[in-house]
Amino acid sequence: MSATAAIWLSGSAYIDGRYMPIAEAMIPVTDWGYRRSDVTYDVVSVWDGAFFKLDDHLRRFRASMDWMRLHPRESDDDIRGILHELVRRTGLREAYVAMDCLRGAAPPNVRRHPANARNYLLAYAVPYVWLMPREVIERGAHLIVASTPRIPEVCVNPRAKNFHWADMTRALFEAQDKGADNPVLLDLEGNVTEGPGFNVFAVTDGVVATPDRGVLEGITRLAVIQLCDKLGLRCETRTVPLKELRDADEIFISSTAGGVMGVTRLDERILGNGRPGPVTERLHEAYWRFRREGWCCEPIDYARAEAAE
Amino acid sequence: MSATAAIWLSGSAYIDGRYMPIAEAMIPVTDWGYRRSDVTYDVVSVWDGAFFKLDDHLRRFRASMDWMRLHPRESDDDIRGILHELVRRTGLREAYVAMDCLRGAAPPNVRRHPANARNYLLAYAVPYVWLMPREVIERGAHLIVASTPRIPEVCVNPRAKNFHWADMTRALFEAQDKGADNPVLLDLEGNVTEGPGFNVFAVTDGVVATPDRGVLEGITRLAVIQLCDKLGLRCETRTVPLKELRDADEIFISSTAGGVMGVTRLDERILGNGRPGPVTERLHEAYWRFRREGWCCEPIDYARAEAAE
Repeated sequence: MSATAAIWLSGSAYIDGRYMPIAEAMIPVTDWGYRRSDVTYDVVSVWDGAFFKLDDHLRRFRASMDWMRLHPRESDDDIRGILHELVRRTGLREAYVAMDCLRGAAPPNVRRHPANARNYLLAYAVPYVWLMPREVIERGAHLIVASTPRIPEVCVNPRAKNFHWADMTRALFEAQDKGADNPVLLDLEGNVTEGPGFNVFAVTDGVVATPDRGVLEGITRLAVIQLCDKLGLRCETRTVPLKELRDADEIFISSTAGGVMGVTRLDERILGNGRPGPVTERLHEAYWRFRREGWCCEPIDYARAEAAE
Repeated sequence: MSATAAIWLSGSAYIDGRYMPIAEAMIPVTDWGYRRSDVTYDVVSVWDGAFFKLDDHLRRFRASMDWMRLHPRESDDDIRGILHELVRRTGLREAYVAMDCLRGAAPPNVRRHPANARNYLLAYAVPYVWLMPREVIERGAHLIVASTPRIPEVCVNPRAKNFHWADMTRALFEAQDKGADNPVLLDLEGNVTEGPGFNVFAVTDGVVATPDRGVLEGITRLAVIQLCDKLGLRCETRTVPLKELRDADEIFISSTAGGVMGVTRLDERILGNGRPGPVTERLHEAYWRFRREGWCCEPIDYARAEAAE
């Protein structure tokens, strides 16, 4: 492999019209995308050389941008082409592909209002990221119920995917302090919401339930809902009180960074003798089998000539 | 002036041990300081060649970092020296000086947990920023009560100064849609909190009141409390219901980016015939007079030789 190719191996990036290796992808410290976390994003996975549910991700990304009044110059078709090009440059068969739209900043001598900034697109492809180490996924995750509640959706819309993670970060430290792998956050009324980078499901008497409010409408969450239908499992999207989660037969989580992953501990309680439960295993197996079989996949043409920069 | 000096005029920056012109100050797109808004910051002003209340800012910045478990290698004395050096390099007599501590990111092959990242300091000095244009400060700001509530402090601690501004940004758009200059956000119970970059004060029957919860404990807010004491004005820090703000004789706001600024409109109500009120004017005048006289000032030695990079 040439040195030129090697530099793209650890990742590729696109910022506002220009491609570069990930190591060179930087944003100005004065950009409101950083300085006010005035940015929305999405992440799509590539497995075995194909995007998963790219249409759903592009649709959600556009809806997030519209909600936040972010308008980059790229169309959805442009973004699709950019994401393909990014993965193509890395040659990665399994990749984690992020797309952000940043506010930018008002130019000097113009009123410092977000309406006066030129928004722009940033995207990158890096080797696939796992939410948790493989051995944790195999034994099932140990979760805690965080004492920090999730930011309410009346303040920040969780369906417009955002970097407002201070509650999540605090909960991650609490989980680590207690020897757990990850936290689950509640809303202010004590119902289950989500964790850092994943949705949560409770299984009771064979019925699957996942929160419908105060959460990101995860694309892997959507895949789980669709897989339940395919497998003849009932799946309910509704309020999930903490008690239901505590008493559940099984708990599992879903994420673009790992698919369907079992939970074998919630605070002091051990679930299923410390092994992921049967419904979880069926969904985990189905998730990866369907992906292998090309469900909702959009293959990448690695041989195609590079687009002009 | 030499070209070397000219490049520093628009601003200087320091990132993790290195000085550079502001135009070169960038952070990696994969840094959690951006990607999870896992960062705290502070901003101090320089007027007439001197920092204002630098000790208070450094103390608050350290408390914010401790709360967020952010530990840069620089001590408070180091940070003080860096801020002086940044302003010295620009030669600016009036400056806006920011200091951030970013989480960084976990290195490859290490668990993706914030505890595994090396935190680092970023700081910069740019020409003084005004929260609002001079003509708006002179006529008094037009505010709206935003329909988006402020993120509750049980979710994100507002005293650890942070970039979780999605609620503020949404409110800024709402203000613009309604032809106003700025929004004030309420908490979930309908009490006054703060606006984007400023604290809020209501004056009723000569008594000044400002919220004590759900807000940043602004250093200019602290200056106002101290100035009230010097001027023989009563100042109460307590819950301020929206009704009290709506019925107030005067309203004013405080910010490092502008000091004490009058408000002459709240939604449909015009205050004081559209001119900042007498208590506001006294505090505004006292703020700038005390600063000119050197109150809480720490002069910058512009002649000192540059520190080695």
